[in-house]
Amino acid sequence: MIAQMVRELAMAARPAARTLAVASSEVKDRALGAMADVLWSNRAAILSANARDLAEAKAERHPTAFLDRLALDDSRVEKMVAGVRQVAHLPDPVGEITGMWRRPNGLLIGRMRVPLGVIGVIYEARPGVTADAAALCLKSGNAVILKGGREAIRSNRVIGGLLAEAAVAAGLPKGCVGFIDSVDREAVAHLLTLSGFVDLIIPRGGEELIRTVQQTSAIPVLAHEKGLCHIYVDDGADLAMAEEIAFNAKVERPGVCNAMESLLVHERVASEFLPTTIRRLRESGVEVRGCPRTRALAPGITAATEADWDTEYLDLILSVKVVGSFEEAVGHIAEHGSGLAEAIVTADHARAMRFLREVDAGAVFVNASTRFTDGGEFGMGAEMGISTQKLHARGPVGLTELTCQKFIVLGEGQIRDSRK
Amino acid sequence: MIAQMVRELAMAARPAARTLAVASSEVKDRALGAMADVLWSNRAAILSANARDLAEAKAERHPTAFLDRLALDDSRVEKMVAGVRQVAHLPDPVGEITGMWRRPNGLLIGRMRVPLGVIGVIYEARPGVTADAAALCLKSGNAVILKGGREAIRSNRVIGGLLAEAAVAAGLPKGCVGFIDSVDREAVAHLLTLSGFVDLIIPRGGEELIRTVQQTSAIPVLAHEKGLCHIYVDDGADLAMAEEIAFNAKVERPGVCNAMESLLVHERVASEFLPTTIRRLRESGVEVRGCPRTRALAPGITAATEADWDTEYLDLILSVKVVGSFEEAVGHIAEHGSGLAEAIVTADHARAMRFLREVDAGAVFVNASTRFTDGGEFGMGAEMGISTQKLHARGPVGLTELTCQKFIVLGEGQIRDSRK
Repeated sequence: MIAQMVRELAMAARPAARTLAVASSEVKDRALGAMADVLWSNRAAILSANARDLAEAKAERHPTAFLDRLALDDSRVEKMVAGVRQVAHLPDPVGEITGMWRRPNGLLIGRMRVPLGVIGVIYEARPGVTADAAALCLKSGNAVILKGGREAIRSNRVIGGLLAEAAVAAGLPKGCVGFIDSVDREAVAHLLTLSGFVDLIIPRGGEELIRTVQQTSAIPVLAHEKGLCHIYVDDGADLAMAEEIAFNAKVERPGVCNAMESLLVHERVASEFLPTTIRRLRESGVEVRGCPRTRALAPGITAATEADWDTEYLDLILSVKVVGSFEEAVGHIAEHGSGLAEAIVTADHARAMRFLREVDAGAVFVNASTRFTDGGEFGMGAEMGISTQKLHARGPVGLTELTCQKFIVLGEGQIRDSRK
Repeated sequence: MIAQMVRELAMAARPAARTLAVASSEVKDRALGAMADVLWSNRAAILSANARDLAEAKAERHPTAFLDRLALDDSRVEKMVAGVRQVAHLPDPVGEITGMWRRPNGLLIGRMRVPLGVIGVIYEARPGVTADAAALCLKSGNAVILKGGREAIRSNRVIGGLLAEAAVAAGLPKGCVGFIDSVDREAVAHLLTLSGFVDLIIPRGGEELIRTVQQTSAIPVLAHEKGLCHIYVDDGADLAMAEEIAFNAKVERPGVCNAMESLLVHERVASEFLPTTIRRLRESGVEVRGCPRTRALAPGITAATEADWDTEYLDLILSVKVVGSFEEAVGHIAEHGSGLAEAIVTADHARAMRFLREVDAGAVFVNASTRFTDGGEFGMGAEMGISTQKLHARGPVGLTELTCQKFIVLGEGQIRDSRK
């Protein structure tokens, strides 16, 4: 029965996607505006559903961080509504033609940006993702099927229902926002089998959710895996700048994927840089775990184990290593980095250029904090997440990354002669 | 044992890919030149190995078309060598920066094109793919692991060995060309499990190979599925042009994926267009299967069944349907097309633009033959195949499609304040 419900949503999304693919920006933006309005005018219903979700989650003794992700209040609903409006104001990527060229036979060939089709978004506790994901998918011309976490079912049911209704009332096709109204664990498994109906799956949540989806999906997956970011302080770097960047990347918001987890310092600047920087980090509550050379320079810190170099703490903990060369730093990053974001602080132009070229990550920084790895900060507008994959999209996933390109060819009757 | 051999090739390819990613175009092009030279000067050894493959395949009573794909002669080796040289002369996509923008905080952000890493290519009888795939992967900065068909093992062993040796002698890293020297069916299964070592799998071959790879791979797959291409002749089209295009798309080379399989004709031009066009097609040996209205206009042809609209004949067979409107044609294509290439012949500007926008395929043509769907014809140089997927790459897969883009960020010490 749950299989049939999921299948029916996907079968309704398919024709909706075809209509949506050619909907004008004006119609889509008006629908997003209506969706924002309806969320705001029904905030009491949203908050009351959320209060019931929250009460149950408390009774089930979920941890505080989980409850915080689940909880909505006036200001969070306001943010959700503002997010939908912001997406409405972003430029529409659909229909963009990114260059055309003329062939010797007169054919004019170019690439046109088009939606992917139907996108399935699987997420966990945050009810705000429901509005976020729907807005990004619709604006990029895609139909969306939403599957939120069990604990947020009442909040998501209200939000999803309001969004779907408002979208259709504003002229978007029926079925363009599908909401899997079920707490059955089988629902996700069924969704992941529908490769003929769904074009892309985006899982948003913890490592376990993402791994499960990647391992079982018959549909292509765009995944945001862990962020194990390094900052490398090069020989000759501006050490005041390096300290500010390292401090910002570790302390400003330690629980996010683009925070620094490992600090690498060239041996020639280690004795000048590390003692003061480590003192400042520790004064801000950071637990520092160092290699032997780091510990010699900053007595009293814990010894880093091999496991530390591969750990995404998502917390006020930092591993620190003194390296003998630029090459050793780049090698350490290649071995231990997760491919999300990596940074060098340097005054040397050649090494800055080498770092940009040689380090394999979604975002590579010179003299700036990895914390900027974010669609908004990059000027791409709202984002669906940050891809750590190499295929299709790498780094922040905004509207453009929810589309693909097709070739368009304009002729005047050309036919092909393979013998030529 | 076979598992270990495949794993060792992949483990050698990984560090090779890191070195190759930053190799200069000059070094890569010189290596490709050396690879071409060594193939040519060892053509006697290649042809003798191929003769043994061919003798065995004949003894195993493989069909003629299969033997033709397997067979090499002087001219085919010459073509293989010329293909490698052609790839050497193509522009290097690696390192290209496709636009940079400045953020209000002064950060300079752009996208840099980089290799994918390690690419596994799985193919069938054609030994020429060995050279082709190696050249395209190396030029785009990727290490490659090759797995050819059992029947071509002797030919591929010689070609793969020569290529790997020449590449390393010319300065490319050891392990950059891996050749799975085994006829064990398990080899492919093992390769598809190595998701930590291999970044992309490209299967080249029949439907069955591609389906098996897609269903079992733990690694992302870039696949070329079937091509079921339509040509729609619109009301008011230049019918002489339409006839030439339809004839070319069906007859010039019927066994390839970009040939036409279904012809759709607007009812207002059907009686003028179909009788002469069908006569000409039949005179060239094409079996025409028509809808009832087509049969009324061209007596003596077979009746098309429902299955015909979904069949990729790859042969001198054509299904023909009379449609009542532009919308019916576009709807038929949406239902039955395979997303490879679709064409309209029209004199109406608005419908030409609508066709480009509304038809969902890798390549959409106005007034030209679908037979042009090809990397060479599109001006992209040699190609690895034609992707029918939407993710990552759609249409011809050339050097650029074997790369991805990372963000590069140049700062002057910027740090982030999330409260702003």
